[in-house]
Amino acid sequence: MTTLLRTIAWNDDQGTIEILDQTKLPGTIEMLVCSSVEILVDAIARLAIRGAPALGAAGALGVALAITEGERNAWSDAQIEAAIDEIRCARPTAVNLAWGVDQVRPLRSQGFPAVLQKAQSIVADDERANRALASHGADWLMEHISHRPIRVLTHCNTGTLATTAWGTALGVVRELHARGVLGMVYADETRPLLQGSRLTAWELQRDGIDYRIQVDSAAASTILRGLVDVAIIGADRIAANGDTANKIGSVGVALACHAAGIPFMVAAPASTVDLAMPNGSNIHIEERADEEVVQWSGISVAPAGAQSHNPAFDVTPEQYITVITTECGVVTPGKGPQLASVITPT
Amino acid sequence: MTTLLRTIAWNDDQGTIEILDQTKLPGTIEMLVCSSVEILVDAIARLAIRGAPALGAAGALGVALAITEGERNAWSDAQIEAAIDEIRCARPTAVNLAWGVDQVRPLRSQGFPAVLQKAQSIVADDERANRALASHGADWLMEHISHRPIRVLTHCNTGTLATTAWGTALGVVRELHARGVLGMVYADETRPLLQGSRLTAWELQRDGIDYRIQVDSAAASTILRGLVDVAIIGADRIAANGDTANKIGSVGVALACHAAGIPFMVAAPASTVDLAMPNGSNIHIEERADEEVVQWSGISVAPAGAQSHNPAFDVTPEQYITVITTECGVVTPGKGPQLASVITPT
Repeated sequence: MTTLLRTIAWNDDQGTIEILDQTKLPGTIEMLVCSSVEILVDAIARLAIRGAPALGAAGALGVALAITEGERNAWSDAQIEAAIDEIRCARPTAVNLAWGVDQVRPLRSQGFPAVLQKAQSIVADDERANRALASHGADWLMEHISHRPIRVLTHCNTGTLATTAWGTALGVVRELHARGVLGMVYADETRPLLQGSRLTAWELQRDGIDYRIQVDSAAASTILRGLVDVAIIGADRIAANGDTANKIGSVGVALACHAAGIPFMVAAPASTVDLAMPNGSNIHIEERADEEVVQWSGISVAPAGAQSHNPAFDVTPEQYITVITTECGVVTPGKGPQLASVITPT
Repeated sequence: MTTLLRTIAWNDDQGTIEILDQTKLPGTIEMLVCSSVEILVDAIARLAIRGAPALGAAGALGVALAITEGERNAWSDAQIEAAIDEIRCARPTAVNLAWGVDQVRPLRSQGFPAVLQKAQSIVADDERANRALASHGADWLMEHISHRPIRVLTHCNTGTLATTAWGTALGVVRELHARGVLGMVYADETRPLLQGSRLTAWELQRDGIDYRIQVDSAAASTILRGLVDVAIIGADRIAANGDTANKIGSVGVALACHAAGIPFMVAAPASTVDLAMPNGSNIHIEERADEEVVQWSGISVAPAGAQSHNPAFDVTPEQYITVITTECGVVTPGKGPQLASVITPT
């Protein structure tokens, strides 16, 4: 029996946000107490909490934190708003962070209890959305893939740790496992920060799911050699036409699925869909520090002064995406009802 | 002024092979003295020396080492042959290792001086072959790419360290640099052993070439975003139809070039071509240890007991290869004269 994981939660007694510090996993399970906006923003920037849906929850609870901290320190309204803006912009690519902030911020005029209640409901809704999108995704896979058990490749971490519970792409994997039709899972290690080997492997192991960790660059050949039946990834932002920004490496997985003729599935809550963005060409791709690539635990693995090209995300064009599953149902980019008609505005 | 690098050389006074220990780079430049077949085989298995052409030289000089060690220890002829077989099979994928052994072994009946002379000539020939294939490759690129300067993506290490001097894919890069038409080079870090960030970056920096290190999974988006004009890789074995085994990740780079409509070039000496193999389907892909993936300098980066899928190579089908350059000229798979008619048998 494994203990229940909480990725993020509000501590009502302290007026703080507690997050499971993902930089310490899998070695150490440690809660990080965010007692100020500064600590929260730093935790987001350092990826102590990451994953688009979890960032949505962090954004929502972050508004409550800013108000609490502001009251404690007699901040002006403008100072509170500036602090909320800081949270909203802590990372640029995942739309969910801004979405979470924007869901809650308008309730400030109704007082703190209304803000907190809305933020808590966003956290609770995320699990419901994950379970629904995972179920829709599993239905689609069981209908379209004849091979049993279904063997899956996944990239980055999209499980409980990336959400508030259950997971998106890893939620689909869990749903297949629950239905007794899941085969081997190939988990890309996901350089530079190894969310695959540190986090996804840890979650799969806790669930008793058979998996292998592979270097990211093995994905294409694993797919072309017929070792998997589908690749399932999460999303940080999905444009109206289906173009999907996700962890760097995702588009390479999509190209290989396309070449091999197997489905490439994107699994994400509707809050990840940015209908204001017609396609992926304008999605801002976060560039991160050289150190993530050229150092390892502070030790250099490259010549002194080496510079990196370190985009955290890439954009997969919709033509390489077979299906997108959200809690509102599945969408096949370019065919049938599209995102704008399927997604219920929140 | 940088000092001249020697990847591998015979020490006539000692009767030993000296190799530049690539596991210590870029931090330490250290020669490893292989005074026995056992030490040499271990060095090959540990990748202290690696790269298909360098392995060809190691195979050739290895025959001389086996004879020397055998004479010193009064081995029987069968023992010497067994030691040579051990070298020949130290790694399975690069055909050059077996090729180097097979070039020299038949001269045993003519005595040690003939063996050593042939092995030395293979080492010397490799540099000549590299310079010729690099020149042919650069000619082709200057004819087929209009963008100046020419921006290149490369994977793994294919420079002096992978050969005896100059390099294959990195030889083409150096040739473009010498001709004054080279732009930015994107070097994939090449997990799990980081030959890109440890070795390629080090060589590029010594040559004063502008480069950026990127995680392997960034390659596809770097190519799709139009940041490079060509990808150039080496090869460990090329089948008669052009199918190419190379470092894991190569086929993903090829798929991205195909999708982006830019050339994907394979650069290798003719000794890498295995005309006895009609296509890539039977190339033996080496599976390496879990530790390379799930540990970092002995420290675990995955849950205890995690297993990996760790193929060291993949096979790029010829339809994704735009051009293959060898010292015998360039070949366009599927179009015009093919490898069998271009490669001069050695």
